[in-house]
Amino acid sequence: MPTHLCGHMHGVQLRAPGDVALADLPIPSAGAGEVVLRVLAAGLCQTDLHIRSAADSRTPDGTTLGHEIAGVVEETGAGVTQWRPGDRVVVHPCWSCGACSACLAGRQNACRRTGGRLNPPPTPGVTKNGGMAEYVCAPASALVAIGDLDPAIAATLTDAALTPYHAIRTCFELLHPGSTAVIIGLGGLGNLAAQILRATTATRIVATDLSDAAIEAARPWADVALSSNDPALADQIVAMTDGFGADVVLDFVGNDATLRLAAAIVGRSGAIRVVGLSGGTYPFVARSAGNPLPRGVSVMCPYGGTYGDLAAVIALARRGDIKPLVTRFPLDDAMRAFDALEAGTIRGRAVLIPGDAAIPPTR
Amino acid sequence: MPTHLCGHMHGVQLRAPGDVALADLPIPSAGAGEVVLRVLAAGLCQTDLHIRSAADSRTPDGTTLGHEIAGVVEETGAGVTQWRPGDRVVVHPCWSCGACSACLAGRQNACRRTGGRLNPPPTPGVTKNGGMAEYVCAPASALVAIGDLDPAIAATLTDAALTPYHAIRTCFELLHPGSTAVIIGLGGLGNLAAQILRATTATRIVATDLSDAAIEAARPWADVALSSNDPALADQIVAMTDGFGADVVLDFVGNDATLRLAAAIVGRSGAIRVVGLSGGTYPFVARSAGNPLPRGVSVMCPYGGTYGDLAAVIALARRGDIKPLVTRFPLDDAMRAFDALEAGTIRGRAVLIPGDAAIPPTR
Amino acid sequence: MPTHLCGHMHGVQLRAPGDVALADLPIPSAGAGEVVLRVLAAGLCQTDLHIRSAADSRTPDGTTLGHEIAGVVEETGAGVTQWRPGDRVVVHPCWSCGACSACLAGRQNACRRTGGRLNPPPTPGVTKNGGMAEYVCAPASALVAIGDLDPAIAATLTDAALTPYHAIRTCFELLHPGSTAVIIGLGGLGNLAAQILRATTATRIVATDLSDAAIEAARPWADVALSSNDPALADQIVAMTDGFGADVVLDFVGNDATLRLAAAIVGRSGAIRVVGLSGGTYPFVARSAGNPLPRGVSVMCPYGGTYGDLAAVIALARRGDIKPLVTRFPLDDAMRAFDALEAGTIRGRAVLIPGDAAIPPTR
Amino acid sequence: MPTHLCGHMHGVQLRAPGDVALADLPIPSAGAGEVVLRVLAAGLCQTDLHIRSAADSRTPDGTTLGHEIAGVVEETGAGVTQWRPGDRVVVHPCWSCGACSACLAGRQNACRRTGGRLNPPPTPGVTKNGGMAEYVCAPASALVAIGDLDPAIAATLTDAALTPYHAIRTCFELLHPGSTAVIIGLGGLGNLAAQILRATTATRIVATDLSDAAIEAARPWADVALSSNDPALADQIVAMTDGFGADVVLDFVGNDATLRLAAAIVGRSGAIRVVGLSGGTYPFVARSAGNPLPRGVSVMCPYGGTYGDLAAVIALARRGDIKPLVTRFPLDDAMRAFDALEAGTIRGRAVLIPGDAAIPPTR
Repeated sequence: MPTHLCGHMHGVQLRAPGDVALADLPIPSAGAGEVVLRVLAAGLCQTDLHIRSAADSRTPDGTTLGHEIAGVVEETGAGVTQWRPGDRVVVHPCWSCGACSACLAGRQNACRRTGGRLNPPPTPGVTKNGGMAEYVCAPASALVAIGDLDPAIAATLTDAALTPYHAIRTCFELLHPGSTAVIIGLGGLGNLAAQILRATTATRIVATDLSDAAIEAARPWADVALSSNDPALADQIVAMTDGFGADVVLDFVGNDATLRLAAAIVGRSGAIRVVGLSGGTYPFVARSAGNPLPRGVSVMCPYGGTYGDLAAVIALARRGDIKPLVTRFPLDDAMRAFDALEAGTIRGRAVLIPGDAAIPPTR
Repeated sequence: MPTHLCGHMHGVQLRAPGDVALADLPIPSAGAGEVVLRVLAAGLCQTDLHIRSAADSRTPDGTTLGHEIAGVVEETGAGVTQWRPGDRVVVHPCWSCGACSACLAGRQNACRRTGGRLNPPPTPGVTKNGGMAEYVCAPASALVAIGDLDPAIAATLTDAALTPYHAIRTCFELLHPGSTAVIIGLGGLGNLAAQILRATTATRIVATDLSDAAIEAARPWADVALSSNDPALADQIVAMTDGFGADVVLDFVGNDATLRLAAAIVGRSGAIRVVGLSGGTYPFVARSAGNPLPRGVSVMCPYGGTYGDLAAVIALARRGDIKPLVTRFPLDDAMRAFDALEAGTIRGRAVLIPGDAAIPPTR
Repeated sequence: MPTHLCGHMHGVQLRAPGDVALADLPIPSAGAGEVVLRVLAAGLCQTDLHIRSAADSRTPDGTTLGHEIAGVVEETGAGVTQWRPGDRVVVHPCWSCGACSACLAGRQNACRRTGGRLNPPPTPGVTKNGGMAEYVCAPASALVAIGDLDPAIAATLTDAALTPYHAIRTCFELLHPGSTAVIIGLGGLGNLAAQILRATTATRIVATDLSDAAIEAARPWADVALSSNDPALADQIVAMTDGFGADVVLDFVGNDATLRLAAAIVGRSGAIRVVGLSGGTYPFVARSAGNPLPRGVSVMCPYGGTYGDLAAVIALARRGDIKPLVTRFPLDDAMRAFDALEAGTIRGRAVLIPGDAAIPPTR
Repeated sequence: MPTHLCGHMHGVQLRAPGDVALADLPIPSAGAGEVVLRVLAAGLCQTDLHIRSAADSRTPDGTTLGHEIAGVVEETGAGVTQWRPGDRVVVHPCWSCGACSACLAGRQNACRRTGGRLNPPPTPGVTKNGGMAEYVCAPASALVAIGDLDPAIAATLTDAALTPYHAIRTCFELLHPGSTAVIIGLGGLGNLAAQILRATTATRIVATDLSDAAIEAARPWADVALSSNDPALADQIVAMTDGFGADVVLDFVGNDATLRLAAAIVGRSGAIRVVGLSGGTYPFVARSAGNPLPRGVSVMCPYGGTYGDLAAVIALARRGDIKPLVTRFPLDDAMRAFDALEAGTIRGRAVLIPGDAAIPPTR
């Protein structure tokens, strides 16, 4: 294992707007406070498709994609004392400053110096070089140890579990025994939300989706699993809570229909967390009569999670409490993985595995 | 002092939709679990004007108005052990069940049995007989002791201080030293919000209003007082927080303009509390790019307050930390008070004083 | 079912200090704000043995014992609106005032009016007539609905689950995924603590006891089960946390040895909750060097639980998350049950079943 | 201003156990992730006297003393992006790892990697070179910006305000309006505790001390100021809370007498925070009858504060909410300052000012 890396590596690059391809890239080296990881796994998600289709224009040309990264420390830059070569880690997708009042208080996803009022901190694979490559360079402060956790699992958790975990934590006090939480949308994140709720609370979990397969996949963790095709769904859920409404609604879709559903089933002083961002709107109206939303409900589009949330999510997976479904592709088949994701033919989360590592059978 | 009251009293009654007048009413008596108070003060607010103008149709004909009530216990019904004749108290405006999981946990304004998903628990003066009369009957469980606090002050606190106190408490964790809280609208509630923030937090208080007089009245408690007429107001506030935005925005107006302002000045992971309900809307959009609202912001229209919040507000007033401005009227001049309130000529909050009690000079 | 009960019933009475026996007692009637329950199950625990042995002198002669009570509402007193005959409920063991600032905020076990600085609020079966009888009278405000939950299970939860649930809730923020909680003592309460931690957190649960049988009984819920006979136990636990110590230690014994163990295994800024009260002491020393306890550890002997905690515990049992082991005795065999409890021959919690109800097989 | 410093500087050094003196020391240079500050002020406290008297043996020979440090950034090491030369900062006295789960969550004073179960993270001036010198080297991650705050004030806050602020924050939920907090001991930290309580809560502040002068100095912030010489003090405080006891007791002395007093005045479910460590003990007894401490009270010896707490304390001072009294000495008069502190003749906190900076008049 070389102390100083040199030469070239394979990686998935945005060459020009909408033009994503495998490329030969220089192997990065670690500046002060940074580490270089040999990538063990890099997840692939809708955000990457948006970059490839040029629907998301934040990413500069020449950027290596990949914001869900697990790897092993290969090189540590000057001043890095907390990590050593050989440590297995994931990379937090939100590279915050570590010095502002939000970061000092452990709220790194609300960093006040990087990003801005309407923009998040830098994200590898989106605004910085990411992990769909053989090596990646990352700030030493943005890593969380994973021990012997399967890197493909670990990589997907940095987005698919971190985001629902944080959303759930923002309304944790409402999730006491006897409460009801409704999950709208049981894709990758929604399914993990059911697992996280099951592991960390004793709330009644009501899982809903349009797809029967998605409902079946969530059934092991749900108390009640219901089809969103049923026009009586809202009435059913309200009845289930004696007319009072759900304490928490987690919307992993975020279109007009799901936001309307959320408003129709949440109870007074409850919480709606809109994680899916499909462009839905609903008229928030400040009036006492005729407001479709009960009083005291907090509505929020949460963002990512804190560094502590990522440590929590890794701990959940290491305890066996959450387990995402992943489909592995060799890094060199990345374009095929993009196509399969776009076509909707992948079971669970797609993960790229660099190098000549044997690809174990999908679980 | 009679143990059992009888005969008649003066009171302000909704006789028919839109028809509010002084009337001769039967003196109530205390059923089991109830007390009858001799009213010492009854506040008057916009809600009462809405009832008089028939804009609010929840109130049954024949209801005695008055939801801001201070009095002295005159008669206790069977089973009432916690109060004795002579105790001076205020009445919580939200008559909850005391037995559901929300009430047991001290969240009486989210009671799951009285009211419903879209409707609050019963309110004296709105859906039950209220306090604009010489006597009022109330549940023993809905009272908070006031000791020697001025009853006119105490009565107004049950709405004008309770509501902002609760709104502030729902985002208390964001109000640490170094944070910034913006108050939009410095009428009765907004002015008290400034007083409450000053007493219970060390946040930087930015107070804004269209009226110079309202700004002046809030200046003793504000760190910064700004006119909402200034078109650069949003930029000024954002600049004041180094571009990050305010941690908390309390909107006591709630029209389109103030909701837009709130969205333009709040920071990532901050909170907007919409207390004023002037019918404003803004399009809450679930999308990652082009969303006018920063990520992680919670938006809520809070409702009233808990019983613990009312005890807190009374404690603040008894310590001298908050002091609403009141203008007193004899109960028999109630209609003049309604007219003055409608005309906007009253300084501070209007309070009716029943009986032949001398009206002390306005403070 | 009689609306007004009269005549006599069987019950277990403290006739004189140390003299507990079955007796013929008057059937109580419901005053205003009270209900009379037909008792379905009444638990029996160490407190009752202390009363029988005159080791606990708080109980007045003539008191009916029984502080763990489940029943069905038979009669409601004047002013009781929240319950109806036929409702199945448990009785909270702590009869608080409902009107002080602690009660208003849902912290009924810290009621400021009943009891006092060193004494708790009244307890049925200890300072008021309790539930080891065919009927019991209780405040309507101290009941929690149980629906179709097995009353024998429900009765035992009011003490054996309420107490650990509350203890756990006082340090809930420390029990995030990745944390470690150690239970010392796996009797009735300790075993339920393991079940509650498993249901409501994802903490690593380390269960310890001197008895192999108790360890086995806790194994389904523990991540790690260890014998307290092992002299290396403390070292083992500290090693398991990489030398840092446990986040939370729940001591259900409370003698000198277990308190020493707790201090030896807790980590910095952790929590020790001493639920068992076996007279142990340890020298809390205010010094920076040589202190056996890490800095930042909070030590507490919690008391009972709040009304909200009881509602939570009932919800856990109804969801199937916790299940105490119970052994049933007919009420008329109460003295045999006392003897068996004293002899230590009962599996799980002892419960008395009044009337001629068939005693189902022990589960 | 040199980019790379060289040569020598004056500083206060522990030369051998118990031998503290001014010495010529090498000017430090900044490694990767570090900064060198030109020291503007360095506080002096009891800990330094303990080192000089060899009562505290943690400090290695050759260590530069000084753990309360304010300065201006002179040199930044490799990889330091968050600070620039000219930035004015204080140094957090607790140098934690920044990577463990506690640090990630903003609880740096409970760092799981530096220090250990019984030992805190490294402290400048105690286990690392500190700030009683012209220059000091510190981790870039342990700094908080102070803007234009007086550096002598800022330096003292890093210990004298940080410690009480953190202690108060550990029981913040008990400090609602209507609560009572008692401060035992009104030296530097106790006086600032009164200021912090006044600024951040509306609790009733009861300030007690043996010294009339200390009581007078705290009077501007206290609601009630009482002499600890009065044998009826405990009764007085209990009476003041209607027999229930105080919600919070902050003990800045920590001897047998003050711990007994704390136990005698705290209420059920209250909190005792022991900040002064004068070697006091009291027998914590796990029994239900005869326990001198009410049930539900949490007892803790907190340690320092988090990085967020230091940011909060600096914000309080910049807003004018807290103001410690300081007496300035030139660095070259350090030994005279040690003697004066030992003799008890210093008003407020002693602060050393390096270089030829004019010493402004004491405020």
